[in-house]
Amino acid sequence: MQTIDPWGSELSEDYGKIVQQFGLEEFDPKLFPKPNRIMRRGVVFAGRDLKPIADAIKKKEKFYVLTGIMPTADRVHFGTKMVIENVRYFQEMGAQAYVLIADLEAAATRGVSLEEARKRALDFHIPAYLALGLDPKKTVFYFQSENKKVMHLAFEFAKKITLNEFKAIYGIADPGRIMSAVTQAGDMLFPQLESRMPGIIPVGIDQDPHIRLCRDIIARTKSKYNFTPISSIYHKFTPSLDGEMKMSKSKPESMIELPEDIKSVLKKMKNAVTGGRESLELQKKLGGEPEKCMIFEMYKQHLIEDDKILDAVYKDCRAGTLLCGQNKQNACAYMESFMDNFVSQLEVARKKVDKLKFIEFK
Amino acid sequence: MQTIDPWGSELSEDYGKIVQQFGLEEFDPKLFPKPNRIMRRGVVFAGRDLKPIADAIKKKEKFYVLTGIMPTADRVHFGTKMVIENVRYFQEMGAQAYVLIADLEAAATRGVSLEEARKRALDFHIPAYLALGLDPKKTVFYFQSENKKVMHLAFEFAKKITLNEFKAIYGIADPGRIMSAVTQAGDMLFPQLESRMPGIIPVGIDQDPHIRLCRDIIARTKSKYNFTPISSIYHKFTPSLDGEMKMSKSKPESMIELPEDIKSVLKKMKNAVTGGRESLELQKKLGGEPEKCMIFEMYKQHLIEDDKILDAVYKDCRAGTLLCGQNKQNACAYMESFMDNFVSQLEVARKKVDKLKFIEFK
Repeated sequence: MQTIDPWGSELSEDYGKIVQQFGLEEFDPKLFPKPNRIMRRGVVFAGRDLKPIADAIKKKEKFYVLTGIMPTADRVHFGTKMVIENVRYFQEMGAQAYVLIADLEAAATRGVSLEEARKRALDFHIPAYLALGLDPKKTVFYFQSENKKVMHLAFEFAKKITLNEFKAIYGIADPGRIMSAVTQAGDMLFPQLESRMPGIIPVGIDQDPHIRLCRDIIARTKSKYNFTPISSIYHKFTPSLDGEMKMSKSKPESMIELPEDIKSVLKKMKNAVTGGRESLELQKKLGGEPEKCMIFEMYKQHLIEDDKILDAVYKDCRAGTLLCGQNKQNACAYMESFMDNFVSQLEVARKKVDKLKFIEFK
Repeated sequence: MQTIDPWGSELSEDYGKIVQQFGLEEFDPKLFPKPNRIMRRGVVFAGRDLKPIADAIKKKEKFYVLTGIMPTADRVHFGTKMVIENVRYFQEMGAQAYVLIADLEAAATRGVSLEEARKRALDFHIPAYLALGLDPKKTVFYFQSENKKVMHLAFEFAKKITLNEFKAIYGIADPGRIMSAVTQAGDMLFPQLESRMPGIIPVGIDQDPHIRLCRDIIARTKSKYNFTPISSIYHKFTPSLDGEMKMSKSKPESMIELPEDIKSVLKKMKNAVTGGRESLELQKKLGGEPEKCMIFEMYKQHLIEDDKILDAVYKDCRAGTLLCGQNKQNACAYMESFMDNFVSQLEVARKKVDKLKFIEFK
């Protein structure tokens, strides 16, 4: 487990290694105006080419932010929530947002039909993205399967890369992964077919290979397309409630999904790893260790918006005045309120889906 | 060089090896009604799953024949002519013909734009196919770049194959080749999306890997699609005028293109390798060896339609009464007439292009 600094000025060892190994820029919240919660708190920890985005914001020049929906499962996870929060942030800073529905990917890898993928996206995933904060007025959507231009780019991009480059980036190469990756590169550059401009892709760090491949392809096709290199911004994983680095579907008891039955969620929260001491006496004496506490991490990443309140929780824990039992009770209340709100926003959003802007293709 | 038997009942060693190595069926002209010139003469030498096609012909059931156009160069070659002759044959036997214009492939590999590829296809390649015998009334055309369904199949097929399988079939694997191959598999199966039926793909033997991959994909997607396995039929290469197995662009003096300036063609014909003996006396005494003669091979594959005339030429050569000088003069006359006819048919065909049936995609 990485150590956690509540104000995010220092990177944990693990994320520090990632920054170095992947050649990322460490994220400096002062780079952007009015950084959002996860930017301020060091949950957003790195990026690539962030300066062109900062410049575009400053000079009020055109830029875009892009993300995708994989319309398979009937719920999303907290990582998605962070992506949306960053998309929302850049929307507010003036970006045109693109959301592609990866129905081709869903159909090919999960065996759902394109029709079923479309239905799921409209019924759940798009409303969920709106419920998590996406601004529908500043967003255009498209279905990957309808976007011939993306498919044309994918075809062309496949011709520009070698198997060894692909292996170097992904560690592994097979036809399916190659097809997905070049199609994603097509998606990421599609907004620039109209006009070249900076674009930012908020992702979890596990998605960085797609960013690197896309940037390589941009370099490789410079003479023909002269695409502006894409920028990216990375947030940490929402840690598993058992203290591991990342929530994982393979351990359902340690991950919370959106939506999820609140009883099940609260049970998981109650079993979460905290920074409590061996005994009550010791904790009252030494204070707790919020840096090791998954409940505190959930506060920081998701549940407590107000920095002052988060700070107070941190101090009370450290002081040994806020004990784990009480704190978990509080956290459950936060979570219940969050989940209630998500579910009701989801209902509201479902009614807005037919008013969204979908790109239409001839 | 392979030995050549004018009536094609025996395979040369090289082609025999290919049949064995690739697991092909040796072609038996008695399998099909009214075999065409290249079928009768053993130029068509092998196939895969030819029986379902023979059955469809016999029972007048639906089947299709498919070929593609690579709209890059401004001429075609004699190999293309043989493909078209086989397409024409199956059209006459009741097949629906599909001709796809591989504009995506052209754009990605040859750097021509999709617009330019389309223009070239309409200006030259499609008219050339008509001039070579394609029946426009029984053919539908489409541009690969417009056919979303093919691209969807390609995406899905990429997920069904492994890198090792690809390498086993093609000897090499890279993203560009993979993309081309799965797209071609999509093209080959597109006609079956409407209804499952046998389909035959006439190709040169060098294209067999695409057929094998497609057949593997059919097996791999059986539970979802249940495509009828595609059939294929193979013709020999048009040999290089210098006696090598295949005409090659790297040796322009030994290949003839369509169209090509007749002076240049005749010069090449005059330098062609023949089956002549060391001296005139010897040739008159022993006769020539048409099996070794590239002029005779051009007769057999392309220039002499009538079996009786071909037979007479064969016998006269063997008897030593038709000598190489005279024979080359005759061949030049055949070639001149063929090329004149091709050029004028090309002009006629250009005027028909706007009346062809192109599949329109929403």
